[in-house]
Amino acid sequence: MSIRIGILGYGNLGRGVECAVKQNEDMELAAVFTRRDPEQVQILTEGVPVCRIEDASQWKDKIDVMILCGGSATDLPVQTPEYAKMFNVVDSFDTHARIPEHFANVDESAKSGGKVAVISVGWDPGMFSLNRLYANAILPDGKDYTFWGKGVSQGHSDAVRRVEGVKDAKQYTIPVPEALEAVRNGENPELSTRDKHTRECFVVLEDGADAARVEEEIKTMPNYFSDYDTTVHFISEEELERDHSGIPHGGFVLRSGKTGWNGENSHLIEYSLKLDSNPEFTSSVLAAYARAAYRMAQEGQSGCRTVFDIAPAYLSLKSGEELRKSML
Amino acid sequence: MSIRIGILGYGNLGRGVECAVKQNEDMELAAVFTRRDPEQVQILTEGVPVCRIEDASQWKDKIDVMILCGGSATDLPVQTPEYAKMFNVVDSFDTHARIPEHFANVDESAKSGGKVAVISVGWDPGMFSLNRLYANAILPDGKDYTFWGKGVSQGHSDAVRRVEGVKDAKQYTIPVPEALEAVRNGENPELSTRDKHTRECFVVLEDGADAARVEEEIKTMPNYFSDYDTTVHFISEEELERDHSGIPHGGFVLRSGKTGWNGENSHLIEYSLKLDSNPEFTSSVLAAYARAAYRMAQEGQSGCRTVFDIAPAYLSLKSGEELRKSML
Repeated sequence: MSIRIGILGYGNLGRGVECAVKQNEDMELAAVFTRRDPEQVQILTEGVPVCRIEDASQWKDKIDVMILCGGSATDLPVQTPEYAKMFNVVDSFDTHARIPEHFANVDESAKSGGKVAVISVGWDPGMFSLNRLYANAILPDGKDYTFWGKGVSQGHSDAVRRVEGVKDAKQYTIPVPEALEAVRNGENPELSTRDKHTRECFVVLEDGADAARVEEEIKTMPNYFSDYDTTVHFISEEELERDHSGIPHGGFVLRSGKTGWNGENSHLIEYSLKLDSNPEFTSSVLAAYARAAYRMAQEGQSGCRTVFDIAPAYLSLKSGEELRKSML
Repeated sequence: MSIRIGILGYGNLGRGVECAVKQNEDMELAAVFTRRDPEQVQILTEGVPVCRIEDASQWKDKIDVMILCGGSATDLPVQTPEYAKMFNVVDSFDTHARIPEHFANVDESAKSGGKVAVISVGWDPGMFSLNRLYANAILPDGKDYTFWGKGVSQGHSDAVRRVEGVKDAKQYTIPVPEALEAVRNGENPELSTRDKHTRECFVVLEDGADAARVEEEIKTMPNYFSDYDTTVHFISEEELERDHSGIPHGGFVLRSGKTGWNGENSHLIEYSLKLDSNPEFTSSVLAAYARAAYRMAQEGQSGCRTVFDIAPAYLSLKSGEELRKSML
């Protein structure tokens, strides 16, 4: 029998999960839940109902894992604990600083409902976190580096759009090649925020806006841009649409460490991602962990889990025997 | 209380484990077991006994995890099942084709003794296998590539040394940069053996040996060299000692895959290692999995496990709470 997947929230991430479910032969999409008027929501999969989010509870016995595709700022802190009482759930909660609190809330709900909840699934947090953990466990005497990009940062793009006179904008985060090279060469550099990433903005101005003032306002924006070397390009709406409508991202996790009786040997572990579509990749990770959640629930487990707590074999369609034969 | 580690077999790998134990503050070295005369074996750690391998059974209650540092050809197929009856064990069995058989033997022993055994730990099998599994689970529609090197292949170096007229030799396996680039560019190339790696040999001749004949014999050696572009350099014994006494290795695991309703977006996942010392890195992975074996045994688990079956958190000295706070 297939794993029956529900999608709650149908934006870029929800649509990505829908595509991922199609790629996984042991899964089927049961229903999509939306806060919008279901009549107005057109999904890709034929014959699958779009339902009002308020009706989700009626699907308790018809969905094996509900994948929560809301945002981390306001949706998931409420939704994940709420739905973990009724469903096995997976979310992509990515506000790093608030993970301990989110974990505690979700753990309590999931245990009370006898369900499995997997939080903070994606690539960072997610695959990058896993690689930090493995590399730290293997090389206790070492130094970690994470670089993000080249990719579109949604938060920074939004910040630019809030500047007066900006009609639309996209912001790219770009790792500094020299910094990445220094890490790869085992130089163990101390890197400031400015050393690691640059920021590049493509901005469409409102009619009559003052370009110089907009540029200055962006470059000096605290937290978002003032600690970085930022470049601002003014382009037309057509150029933005033509050249910057994708949502690529990626990055690098490196650990450089020493072994030997006197630390005489150096080692470099590097993990990197180059993604055409940030939400579709995140969705693909969510789908794999939905399989894990389903299996853990079948075993009678309950409570909150993160990628750290889940044995890799749970993610794969293959049996342990097949995995040992083909991938070990 | 510290995890009491035993080392069985004191070659490059055993010495590497000794160094790794020193780096892990929750571990202590309890004893080293050797087939040689213990009087003749000098270890690095002060105050730790070197014992005859025959006396290992007397240490059943004084060792938490025995790390088996023998070879995969003849030692481990016998030793791992034998010692898994008495100890929690970790090995680095790396004959890929025989893993299913080894797993079955070790599983039976470990279950009969109520112990935990972790087999095939290291980087390939090991970290590379993990990365193949994760990447396949995330991107079901994709293609895998593994490149090894640049590094010293022990098996190929031995093969060269067996050629008549060769006094000593080192063989390096080198990934073909153009092939690696094609994969990174998402070209999904079909690569033959010859396309992926070249082989470079540094050879010291016996006095009076025929260099041309030796070179020809190496380059045409079936299985080892005939399917590769091989370069042979003749050097002096001093040069071999000076420039080629290290045991570096490394490699790349890549998966290139597509997502989207019609596979319209491409993604690249890449994991790579650059290692000064192949045995010391392998040993460091063994030590991390010894921690996992200890914890699983404490929980009352028994039987054989591979890296696929072990949740990442088991490898880390940090608690789940600390991990979520600092690494997720």
